[in-house]
Amino acid sequence: MLQLYFFPMACSLASRIALMEAGLDVHYHLAHIWTKKVVDDGSDFLGVSPKGAVPVLVLENGERLTESAAVLQYIADVKPEAGLAPAFGDPDRYRLQEWLSFVGAEIHKAFLFPTFWCKDDGSLAKPRARVAETLSMPATHLADREFLVGNRFTVADAHLTWALLLLRPAGVDIAQWPSLSAYLERMQARPAVREAIATEMALRKTMAASPA
Amino acid sequence: MLQLYFFPMACSLASRIALMEAGLDVHYHLAHIWTKKVVDDGSDFLGVSPKGAVPVLVLENGERLTESAAVLQYIADVKPEAGLAPAFGDPDRYRLQEWLSFVGAEIHKAFLFPTFWCKDDGSLAKPRARVAETLSMPATHLADREFLVGNRFTVADAHLTWALLLLRPAGVDIAQWPSLSAYLERMQARPAVREAIATEMALRKTMAASPA
Repeated sequence: MLQLYFFPMACSLASRIALMEAGLDVHYHLAHIWTKKVVDDGSDFLGVSPKGAVPVLVLENGERLTESAAVLQYIADVKPEAGLAPAFGDPDRYRLQEWLSFVGAEIHKAFLFPTFWCKDDGSLAKPRARVAETLSMPATHLADREFLVGNRFTVADAHLTWALLLLRPAGVDIAQWPSLSAYLERMQARPAVREAIATEMALRKTMAASPA
Repeated sequence: MLQLYFFPMACSLASRIALMEAGLDVHYHLAHIWTKKVVDDGSDFLGVSPKGAVPVLVLENGERLTESAAVLQYIADVKPEAGLAPAFGDPDRYRLQEWLSFVGAEIHKAFLFPTFWCKDDGSLAKPRARVAETLSMPATHLADREFLVGNRFTVADAHLTWALLLLRPAGVDIAQWPSLSAYLERMQARPAVREAIATEMALRKTMAASPA
């Protein structure tokens, strides 16, 4: 059985969405990304992955795969009949990789990451100034499309759905891009997406209320 | 013929290295990432790609592909006999994607990008504090390996080679990670890598000396 180390509402949510869309049985482990402890048993998360970051997908052979772009493609390929990624050889596979990179680098690493990580030092003027231009890319693309790639839900949509959800706590109102807010609403109407988010929101609330 | 829009010594250098390692004939266009002009003919680079960023690979069918992780995998798959990526279906393909994501997000977007982009505002304390931990990941991995993935040069090595080259102008001396400096030396000893770097360094010097 696959195992996923996750932190509620962190970028590993995209992997959970993909796993639930694929209907895969998975053992989920909550890894605390600040304390670097695995919550199940208090063990050292750095022993699972020296990066100390989520997602970490433990494969059937015990190997550990990190980085959303790789983990999401792996999940999609475990269950090709779920159609979560264009097949290898389909030109759209590169479009999937293009969007995974864009969400991971431009929205997550260039904006969400400094926003949540540097929030105490007032050095966010440049990331904030740039995010509207960044978001105009998927907004334009989605103006006449239901999904990011092709005409069905893929792991790129799982990735973007997570990023859009985090924009609100990061202080960005996506209502200014009607195509993005309509897209997020469509994605959240999917049962697997809704359930994945509800599960992690509930866990996150428990954690916020705890002394740790 | 494939076409690559590049800016000398920007991350598109990784794509040039991959194209030259593959021995592909390519039409290169210098796109100025500050002025957003294509230097060949003064045309608007935003007309080529609204992102205004390099690399942009123009495919044989005229479509334009962006994002290094996607462009590099496309190049590798155009010429599979060059062995620049494990074949689809090989588990190492996900390791390639993992490294492409790590270099693109953690070294490029979380460190090099703010270093060169925010250099005037003194807000780099956190990216700088974090980069040693980031670089310890490939340093540890390469302590007993010649290449990032498997036992041959892949596009992940092209990507990391570019990132390591940029660390020096970003003020990071990689000599503190002997496995990284030895790796960079090995990579730079490859004829295609050496030629790609020499070509772009020469172009960059011309530009720096020009009034623009």
